Amino acid sequence: MAVILGPNRYGKAETRLVRVVRDGGVHHIKDINVSSALSGDMRETHLRGDNAAVLPTDTQKNTTYAFARKHGVDQIEDFALLLARHYVSSQPAVHHARVEIEEYFWDRIPTQGPADERHSFVRSGREVRTCVVHHDRDGTSTVVSGLKNLMVLNSTGSEFHGFAVDDYTTLQPAFDRVLATEVSAAWRHVSDGSPFGKSYSEVRRCLLEAFADTHSLSLQQTLYAMGERVLQARGEICEVRLAMPNKHHFPVDLTPFGLDNPDEVFYAADRPYGLIEGAVLHDDAPAAHCAWD
Amino acid sequence: MAVILGPNRYGKAETRLVRVVRDGGVHHIKDINVSSALSGDMRETHLRGDNAAVLPTDTQKNTTYAFARKHGVDQIEDFALLLARHYVSSQPAVHHARVEIEEYFWDRIPTQGPADERHSFVRSGREVRTCVVHHDRDGTSTVVSGLKNLMVLNSTGSEFHGFAVDDYTTLQPAFDRVLATEVSAAWRHVSDGSPFGKSYSEVRRCLLEAFADTHSLSLQQTLYAMGERVLQARGEICEVRLAMPNKHHFPVDLTPFGLDNPDEVFYAADRPYGLIEGAVLHDDAPAAHCAWD
Amino acid sequence: MAVILGPNRYGKAETRLVRVVRDGGVHHIKDINVSSALSGDMRETHLRGDNAAVLPTDTQKNTTYAFARKHGVDQIEDFALLLARHYVSSQPAVHHARVEIEEYFWDRIPTQGPADERHSFVRSGREVRTCVVHHDRDGTSTVVSGLKNLMVLNSTGSEFHGFAVDDYTTLQPAFDRVLATEVSAAWRHVSDGSPFGKSYSEVRRCLLEAFADTHSLSLQQTLYAMGERVLQARGEICEVRLAMPNKHHFPVDLTPFGLDNPDEVFYAADRPYGLIEGAVLHDDAPAAHCAWD
Amino acid sequence: MAVILGPNRYGKAETRLVRVVRDGGVHHIKDINVSSALSGDMRETHLRGDNAAVLPTDTQKNTTYAFARKHGVDQIEDFALLLARHYVSSQPAVHHARVEIEEYFWDRIPTQGPADERHSFVRSGREVRTCVVHHDRDGTSTVVSGLKNLMVLNSTGSEFHGFAVDDYTTLQPAFDRVLATEVSAAWRHVSDGSPFGKSYSEVRRCLLEAFADTHSLSLQQTLYAMGERVLQARGEICEVRLAMPNKHHFPVDLTPFGLDNPDEVFYAADRPYGLIEGAVLHDDAPAAHCAWD
Repeated sequence: MAVILGPNRYGKAETRLVRVVRDGGVHHIKDINVSSALSGDMRETHLRGDNAAVLPTDTQKNTTYAFARKHGVDQIEDFALLLARHYVSSQPAVHHARVEIEEYFWDRIPTQGPADERHSFVRSGREVRTCVVHHDRDGTSTVVSGLKNLMVLNSTGSEFHGFAVDDYTTLQPAFDRVLATEVSAAWRHVSDGSPFGKSYSEVRRCLLEAFADTHSLSLQQTLYAMGERVLQARGEICEVRLAMPNKHHFPVDLTPFGLDNPDEVFYAADRPYGLIEGAVLHDDAPAAHCAWD
Repeated sequence: MAVILGPNRYGKAETRLVRVVRDGGVHHIKDINVSSALSGDMRETHLRGDNAAVLPTDTQKNTTYAFARKHGVDQIEDFALLLARHYVSSQPAVHHARVEIEEYFWDRIPTQGPADERHSFVRSGREVRTCVVHHDRDGTSTVVSGLKNLMVLNSTGSEFHGFAVDDYTTLQPAFDRVLATEVSAAWRHVSDGSPFGKSYSEVRRCLLEAFADTHSLSLQQTLYAMGERVLQARGEICEVRLAMPNKHHFPVDLTPFGLDNPDEVFYAADRPYGLIEGAVLHDDAPAAHCAWD
Repeated sequence: MAVILGPNRYGKAETRLVRVVRDGGVHHIKDINVSSALSGDMRETHLRGDNAAVLPTDTQKNTTYAFARKHGVDQIEDFALLLARHYVSSQPAVHHARVEIEEYFWDRIPTQGPADERHSFVRSGREVRTCVVHHDRDGTSTVVSGLKNLMVLNSTGSEFHGFAVDDYTTLQPAFDRVLATEVSAAWRHVSDGSPFGKSYSEVRRCLLEAFADTHSLSLQQTLYAMGERVLQARGEICEVRLAMPNKHHFPVDLTPFGLDNPDEVFYAADRPYGLIEGAVLHDDAPAAHCAWD
Repeated sequence: MAVILGPNRYGKAETRLVRVVRDGGVHHIKDINVSSALSGDMRETHLRGDNAAVLPTDTQKNTTYAFARKHGVDQIEDFALLLARHYVSSQPAVHHARVEIEEYFWDRIPTQGPADERHSFVRSGREVRTCVVHHDRDGTSTVVSGLKNLMVLNSTGSEFHGFAVDDYTTLQPAFDRVLATEVSAAWRHVSDGSPFGKSYSEVRRCLLEAFADTHSLSLQQTLYAMGERVLQARGEICEVRLAMPNKHHFPVDLTPFGLDNPDEVFYAADRPYGLIEGAVLHDDAPAAHCAWD
């Protein structure tokens, strides 16, 4: 019985980077948060503190900034792939790289100034675009795109009944309830060559429309419909994973005050909350490798 | 030398309320967070635990929900005034009420379904609308409207130089910098009868436009311009208070990597940050009373 | 009717500073978060962007670090006073300075190594020590010390009944309830020369003991007792302000499952919560000036 | 090519429960946060909204509270196992249950009252105790215990040099640096019958002591030493996983102010941070099954 080193990785997390591109007086900004993690032949640093194989996390930060200048930042997936491949190809001890990027969206502030001067922006809402890419020295790359903090609510068109009942069940069947959730979604691309920008906006549209269009008998059904919609619409995607907290909205009992409450006034609860998680995929989806790690 | 009771208040904080209004199949939602605080003749509960003057905070929660059903919730300022006046007029021991409300905005999810079925929503961004109203038994009401979490950024049009220099100054003058801030703004109404909905959207527009249009020599100058713009445009407002953290974006030094950085790649720092706070007001603004408490 | 500049201040917020003092192999650490804000003759920067009176916030950051090296950091109140006086005395345009400091506590990690090698620490809990000092060019200094995030709970010894009842009251009287709160307290010193270290630990002890010892008929009564205890025990303090959210713990109704619940199993709710705020002071307390701003 | 349902689970997250046990006038409290997630034969609810197999998340909340009354809550691992087994054994459609619990610690407030009256508590710091248990209908149970938010700092005894260097490396070797991290640790038990209370306190002690005692040439080395110490000391543990952000403390350059800085004054940075993750295990550890999911 000996003590051994198991899976490990290290890197620089949350390198905050804003890039400004000038098209004359019209500016564009990209606001991202980059985390890289490397793994490979790292036994010596763990066991003896010999760091010969360790590319410092500070170097990873520098590389992120330098690559943003050298190569620009267009789609976050492409930028993540560029970084991941660089680490694996340039460092013999690094066998595998994982790069995760978050992107925060900004809108232009409308002004009456000249059309060739546009450099004012306002953050556009809570949804965050995400990606996680892996690149292995065997040549495998995987790309998972995603979003989080997308809060959605249906004020009708949701039911929940016919559920299992045991000695601890007091829930009454609901035939018309508010359904609200904060969607975290991630979708795996068939290859690393998707048109990531177009893909993102279309997947997002599918998720929102399926949420809105589905007459829901359970949040699970809604979740599945959202994943299925994406897979049917977007050939570049082979798997969708969703985590959807059921953010309960309870109708307030107003009868003590001589008032009815025809599903009009709700208490929006914090905790506890339901949490529904699931994957929807093509039956012939390629192997996931470590895409979801 | 005796120990005495000083200023005090008590209430129910953060009553989360969502109201759904049905216009046939077209639904509207209002998503708010209500905090009420009462003060008055509360000596006995503090000194002896005699609660005869204390309307329970639980009752305040109930009242909020019941009033939402009885009176509806249109503009948050009007709903806050309704609650504040109710507490003062109905409870002899309550001499003063403060009601604070936050509102979270939702957009409709566009779908291709029939136009008379609209009940799907997506949270629209990080900005939160706010208000604080006070009502006193002497009949005085004050209304302060506001917003918070409005993140804005100018990628050019900002300078900072000519500042005071002492032995601890190392900052170099900047002639073209990124200016980014997360605006918290509050504005005091001349009366409690403003058209609060229209007023809010116009004040917000003034703040954004003044931020975008002002060629800034200091964040203070931008702050003042934003407040001034509101006061010049909106006669119902007599004072604007702004708190604007200077969210520093530092150009990354890429020379160690043989790269220039013509204000293209920035590190978005967390802490420390500058914090600029200021009030802009009409010289004949009516007395503020406790509006800002 | 003209637009004018009202109260304003600016500074550097949240300068995070850790200081290590070496007593041979025995180290001591001080972990603080410093925010300074200056005000005075700042009209020109607001109106015209003329920054001649503006000592940059970057300089304030530098000053904080340099003063930690030159003067050390013992009690946070003394360090804050040092900084505040420096800004006012060295910058003619600065008429007033406010310095706020948070301190995070660390304990030593017990080890079996030699007693003259002690340099390992573990953060000791959630309570944060705070202070706010003001210094004005008229020579006035005020010092408010405090703490926040001190969570306390009495599992019995708390009642709440005899309260006012109206049409919206459904709360039942409670004769034995859990009382839990997260104390934010601030206390004003008579002078700027208190023994701040000893004072802090004694005030903290008074607050905890009064919370524990008071058989509570209302959270207001507990709040008052806590303030009174401090004032009676500590002559250097003239006023205590407390904000205490009533973090409700509701007994769960287990009767649907054939179980009683003799105040044993509670649901700890998040929102809404009661919020009790109050000041307790000596009737001959000196003028507060801007101590509480 | 068909769309299929992949891995999925659902449950109630963050049921907040405080239990008070009365030993005469001496009270004990247990403060936990319970999340359960069930999986199994859930195809119908996803595809057709048929909920016959779905035990409502509301029922899971009820069960948590009822079991706390019926069975008490001693060690969180035992309580989690009890819940997990209940769901799998009582619901045919539930093939697998995962229960996660967080525990928050409280200390007694010392008072001078009678020794047989002890019911006042203060939250004791930021560290949170955790566990994740899985139970499968094949009879397999796995137990992972853990902690998070344990912040530790060594003010000396840490070096970092001899690392890989590339074109983007600017980091200078460090021969004496501050090493600070916020430990998240989880450790897998060989069986589901460990003495979990004793085990927790001993593992915690091992982690702290190994952090303090290790002269560190890299955070990886420290991480490994912490895991190894646990495995060597505690036979009931077969694997330890650690995630340790390197919370950088940079010495401030004070030379512009004519001051040296002999590793005395540090800037504690927020982002980016290094992130070191690794597993340490026995080479003959039993199969992990889904213990880490």
